[in-house]
Amino acid sequence: MTETAEIESEVRTLLEQGDLDAAIEFLNNRHPAEVGGVIDELDGETAYALFDQLDRRTQARILPYMQPSHQLSMVQHLGRHAQARLLTDMNADERADLYQELPEDVQEALMPALAKAEREDLLRLTSYPEGTVGSVMTSEYATVPAHISARQAIERLRLQALNKETIYVAYVLDTERHLLGIVTLSGLVVASPGESVEDLMQTEVVNVHTDAPSAEAARLIADYDLLAVPVVDDEDRMVGIVTHDDAMDVQEAEATEDIHKGASVGDLPGSLKETALTTLYQKRIMWLVLLVFANVFSGASISLYEDTIQAHVGLVFFLPLLIASAGNAGSQSATLMVRAIATGDVISGDWFRMLLREIGLGLMLGLTMAAAVAAIGLYRGGAELAHVVSLTMVIVVLSGSLIGMSLPFVLNKLNMDPATASAPVVSFIADVAGILVYFGLASALLSIPAQ
Amino acid sequence: MTETAEIESEVRTLLEQGDLDAAIEFLNNRHPAEVGGVIDELDGETAYALFDQLDRRTQARILPYMQPSHQLSMVQHLGRHAQARLLTDMNADERADLYQELPEDVQEALMPALAKAEREDLLRLTSYPEGTVGSVMTSEYATVPAHISARQAIERLRLQALNKETIYVAYVLDTERHLLGIVTLSGLVVASPGESVEDLMQTEVVNVHTDAPSAEAARLIADYDLLAVPVVDDEDRMVGIVTHDDAMDVQEAEATEDIHKGASVGDLPGSLKETALTTLYQKRIMWLVLLVFANVFSGASISLYEDTIQAHVGLVFFLPLLIASAGNAGSQSATLMVRAIATGDVISGDWFRMLLREIGLGLMLGLTMAAAVAAIGLYRGGAELAHVVSLTMVIVVLSGSLIGMSLPFVLNKLNMDPATASAPVVSFIADVAGILVYFGLASALLSIPAQ
Repeated sequence: MTETAEIESEVRTLLEQGDLDAAIEFLNNRHPAEVGGVIDELDGETAYALFDQLDRRTQARILPYMQPSHQLSMVQHLGRHAQARLLTDMNADERADLYQELPEDVQEALMPALAKAEREDLLRLTSYPEGTVGSVMTSEYATVPAHISARQAIERLRLQALNKETIYVAYVLDTERHLLGIVTLSGLVVASPGESVEDLMQTEVVNVHTDAPSAEAARLIADYDLLAVPVVDDEDRMVGIVTHDDAMDVQEAEATEDIHKGASVGDLPGSLKETALTTLYQKRIMWLVLLVFANVFSGASISLYEDTIQAHVGLVFFLPLLIASAGNAGSQSATLMVRAIATGDVISGDWFRMLLREIGLGLMLGLTMAAAVAAIGLYRGGAELAHVVSLTMVIVVLSGSLIGMSLPFVLNKLNMDPATASAPVVSFIADVAGILVYFGLASALLSIPAQ
Repeated sequence: MTETAEIESEVRTLLEQGDLDAAIEFLNNRHPAEVGGVIDELDGETAYALFDQLDRRTQARILPYMQPSHQLSMVQHLGRHAQARLLTDMNADERADLYQELPEDVQEALMPALAKAEREDLLRLTSYPEGTVGSVMTSEYATVPAHISARQAIERLRLQALNKETIYVAYVLDTERHLLGIVTLSGLVVASPGESVEDLMQTEVVNVHTDAPSAEAARLIADYDLLAVPVVDDEDRMVGIVTHDDAMDVQEAEATEDIHKGASVGDLPGSLKETALTTLYQKRIMWLVLLVFANVFSGASISLYEDTIQAHVGLVFFLPLLIASAGNAGSQSATLMVRAIATGDVISGDWFRMLLREIGLGLMLGLTMAAAVAAIGLYRGGAELAHVVSLTMVIVVLSGSLIGMSLPFVLNKLNMDPATASAPVVSFIADVAGILVYFGLASALLSIPAQ
C-alpha cells in the first residue's frame, strides 16, 4: 500500500513538472498492480492521458488491476478498433469480466471488430452464471500431446508461453478433449530429455465442473496446494482452468460475503467505497425491517408480564443485560459453526458430537456469567432477585448456545446458506426466550407484592 | 471432500480383506492431501500400520496434510532416528511447524540426530513469533547467479528442484544476500538460451520483512498475483520466501480469525472440532463477562426512568425492538467497515467521506424502519406512542450506524485490531443510547398520567 502511495507521489511530481514522458518511463518499470493502483487515484483526464500513452500490452495488463468504474471509463475513451485491440491483448478471463461490464451498445459494436476465435471464446466465457467456476475460469491453458518427449514438450510450452495464463502446468488431452493427465514444467525440466510425456504425467488429477460454485475451485486449489485446477463440462471435456491467483480472489470474496451475511448484509457487487448508496440501502434494509417485525414477538412476550413488571419494576434493570448475554453467547456459537461449515472443518455428520460439546460449554459459560450477574443482583435487590437472575442466566446462555450451534446445521440441511443472518436471527430467538424465561421465573419465584 | 470419502471407503474395504499391500499400492497413487485425509479418518492403530508401510518421501509429504494431533501421534510411534529422517525429508517450513508441536523432551532428543544444516535451519525458522512472516516462510528457495546464461540457469534450477519449494521463481543475490532481481522459469524457457540472467531479471521486486504480520505477505501475493514473495531481514538480506499455497492458508486463517473476533471469540489455535473445551471456554468467556458488566449501564439507564415505566408500562413492549434495531444497524455498519479495512478497500483517509455517506444511509434506513415501527405503535397505543417510537427509531438507527462506522476507524487509529468485538461493543453502546433516547423522549412527550 505505502509502496503504491510513493509511486503515486513520484508520478504526480513528474506530471506537475509537465514531464509526461518521464512519468510513463517511470511507470513502465513497475508492476501492473502498482500502475493500475496509481492511475486509479488520478483524476479522470490525467488518468486517461497517462493510460493512452502506455503501450498496448501494458494497457492490457494494468486494466484488470483498476477499479471496475475506471476500467470502463478508460475503455470508453478509446475508439472501437483500439478497444478491440485492447480486448484481444487481455487475458481471456479478464477480457470476459471487462466485456460484461460494458454497456450493451458498446458490446454490440465491439463484437464484429474482434477475430472469430476471440469472439467465440468471449461468448462462451460470458455464458456462465456469476458465482460459478465457469465465470472465473480462463480458456488459456497449455496443452501437450502424450507421445512426445520431455524436451519436445518444453519446446511446445515455450511457444505457448505468451498466450497462456501459465505454462507451469500442461494438460494432456485425448482427441475428445478428455483429460488424460498433467505434467508440470518443473517435472519436465527435471526429467531426462528423452522421457515421454506419457510416462511422466500424473494421471490422478482433481478437476471441477463449470457449474460448481467458484468457491469449490478455490477450496481444491487450497487443499491440494495446486497452481491451477482443470475445469470440465457435462461431457467431461476440459474447457478451462482456474489459476491460484484467481482462487485467492475468490477465497477473499467468499470470506467477505460470509462476513457480510453474518451481519445480515446482502451480497455487495464490489468495493464498499464504490458501491452506490441506494445499493447499500437495498442490501441492508431487508433484514433490518424483517427483524423489526420479528421483534414484535419480544414485545408481545413482555406484555404477557406487564403485571409482574408493574409489581417489580426493578426487574427491568436486568432485562437488557440478560437478553444481550443470551444473544452474545448464541452469536458466538453460530459464528463459530457457520465458519467451520464454510471451511469444511465441520460436516453434517458432526452435529451430535458438537451438540454434546456445546451442552458442556454452554453450562460452563452460563455458570460463570450467572456468578457475575448474581453478584449484581445481590447488590441491587437481595437474595431472591439474585436467585432469579442467575437461574435465568444459566438457562438463556445454555439455550442461546445450543440454538446458535444448531441453526447453521439446520439451514445447511435445508440447502440454505448457513451464513445468512445466523447471528441476528439467533439474537432475536435469544431475546424472546430470554424474556419468557426471565419474567416467567420472576412471577413464579418472587414474593407477591413488591411495593 | 466426496473424493476423499470414496478413497477412504476403498481403503477400508481393502483393509477389511486384510490386503494391506493393496491398500498401500492404492494410496501411493493418490495426492498427498487425499492420503493424509484418509489416514486422519482411520483409528489409531490402523492409521499407524498404514503410515508405517509408506515410503519415507511419501510419509514426509502426507504428514503436513494431517490434523496436528494425528501428525504428533504418527511421529511419536517412530524411533528417534526414523523421526530425524522423516523431519529431514520434509519441507523446511512444514518441518519447523511440526517440530514446534513436539513435546520438549522429544525436541531435545531429536536435535542431535539432525544434520547441522537442518538443525540451524530449524532453529532459525522456529525463532520467529507466531503470526509473523518469519513463522510461515520457508528457507528453501531457488537462487541463480546474475552472470550465467538462461540455459545455464535452467540447468542450475534443475539441480535444485528436489530440495526447493518451487523453481518457478529464482532469486538473484549479491554476496551479502541482498536481492538484485528475480527470474521466472517461464521467462528462462522463453528467452534465447544465451541471454544472461542479468539482462532477463526483473529488478523492481516487492518484498516483505520477517517481522511483518503474515497477512501482509498474503496480501502482496494476492494483489500482485505472485507465486511467492521474498522475505528479508533487518539488514535487507534475503532469508526466505512465502509461497502462494501458504498465502492461501494464511488468508483463510485471517478471515476465520476476523470472523471469530467479530463475534467476540478469541483466536482459536486450529480446527473448531479439535479445540479442547477448556480452550474454547477461555476464548469465549472474557468478552461475555465484560459485556455482562458493561450492560449494568443499560440497567442503570433504565432505572433512571422507573417512574416513567411505572406510569406507562406499555412502553416496555417496544424496548427490545428499539435496542435490537439500533444494534442490528450498528453491527451492519461496523462489520462492513471492519472488513473493508481488513481487505484494504478503505483506508484511514476515507473516514470523512464514509461518514458523510453513512449519515445519508443511516437516515434512509432509520426512516424506513421508523415507518414500520410507527404502524405497530399506532396499532398498540395511538398517535402519541407512534410518534415517540418512530422518532426514537430514526435517532437510534442513525446514531447506531454512525458509531458502528466510526468505531473501527478509531480502533485502527489507536493501533488496535478493528475486528475485535466491534459488533458486540457497538450493540452495547446502541443498547444504552437506545434506552436513554427512548425513555427520555417518552418522559418529555407523553401526556403525564397514563393509568
